[in-house]
Amino acid sequence: MAYQLASRNEEINIVAFDYGQRHRRELECAKRCAADLDAKYNEVDLRGVGSLLTGSALTDDIDVPHGHYAAPNMAITIVPNRNAIFLTVAFGIAVARNATAVATAVHGGDHYVYPDCRQEFLESFNAMQRLACEGTGHPDLHLETPFANGNKGDIVRVGAELNVPFDQTWSCYEGSELHCGKCGTCVERQEAFEMAGVDDPTIYRD
Amino acid sequence: MAYQLASRNEEINIVAFDYGQRHRRELECAKRCAADLDAKYNEVDLRGVGSLLTGSALTDDIDVPHGHYAAPNMAITIVPNRNAIFLTVAFGIAVARNATAVATAVHGGDHYVYPDCRQEFLESFNAMQRLACEGTGHPDLHLETPFANGNKGDIVRVGAELNVPFDQTWSCYEGSELHCGKCGTCVERQEAFEMAGVDDPTIYRD
Repeated sequence: MAYQLASRNEEINIVAFDYGQRHRRELECAKRCAADLDAKYNEVDLRGVGSLLTGSALTDDIDVPHGHYAAPNMAITIVPNRNAIFLTVAFGIAVARNATAVATAVHGGDHYVYPDCRQEFLESFNAMQRLACEGTGHPDLHLETPFANGNKGDIVRVGAELNVPFDQTWSCYEGSELHCGKCGTCVERQEAFEMAGVDDPTIYRD
Repeated sequence: MAYQLASRNEEINIVAFDYGQRHRRELECAKRCAADLDAKYNEVDLRGVGSLLTGSALTDDIDVPHGHYAAPNMAITIVPNRNAIFLTVAFGIAVARNATAVATAVHGGDHYVYPDCRQEFLESFNAMQRLACEGTGHPDLHLETPFANGNKGDIVRVGAELNVPFDQTWSCYEGSELHCGKCGTCVERQEAFEMAGVDDPTIYRD
């Protein structure tokens, strides 16, 4: 999504969240992406929030489940209210910087498990933010969700057209140096490249 | 509001936010309130967020305006998207703790300046949160706003009935040891006691 926005000559800020996730590699990748696109990079320290949102395999000492996303055991990867928290912070930053939009690359493949990736939630969130900012001089500020009705295959297709360096992007929920190849998000990553008919440059541990 | 909920034998968690505000005294007061009510106290470290939400007199090196809240100059006390950020974090904590409600004491006196204290915003926020939590096992979790249509006079009246130790509560936006007596929230505090016909035990510097 960042490469897509940059290709339209939008001036972008990349906002990444440190909430104590074990897959901190995604932060390095976000930073590298910002450098590659000559975009501002903001890493938001939410570790103090993450430590209170206990019970998720993404932050706690609980095993990350293996297998496919649609499986009920993936619910353990829910961090309570994570997307709503991230998006409200992003809107705060957008107001402070006079930005016209907040964009998020949530996608349809996450609908099964994560209610805060669904279209109804995203529309409701956008309506809430418009009311929260009403009269504060940011009438155009809104949420953009280019992949909300697509899937990860669509994201790979768009990325391939824009020559995104996929080997410098991160999905895996485990905290290792390499993608594990077995957790839900690794399974989905592999499927996405297959669906798009694009070579997957990722090195998987298993 | 905390004393009111406790008087109904609700088991409460008090959540206070450190966002780098100069009136950090409010955090000590929140902690003391929790101890007084035998409630759990959670201080959420949002300083990493606050530092990105620049431009408000509550966090930056800008003079806190004096006078009445309805005045246009009070807009400088807006911290971008603050209430939405606080509330989404509170909902995350509520999910993690299996709570049934998040309560906030925003009041009608703030409607002039702060869009995120208005009834339309609060209803929209509640609807958004219900969608965000849908199917995650928290069907009853909702937002409570007992003073949304009242004013600070109503808050003082309720507090007086419950013997709230008002001398241990904090309003002032300045960072001093005593309430300044001149900033918007001090002016409103004094008016609230007058409206309620309750003696104000606060010691004002001016």
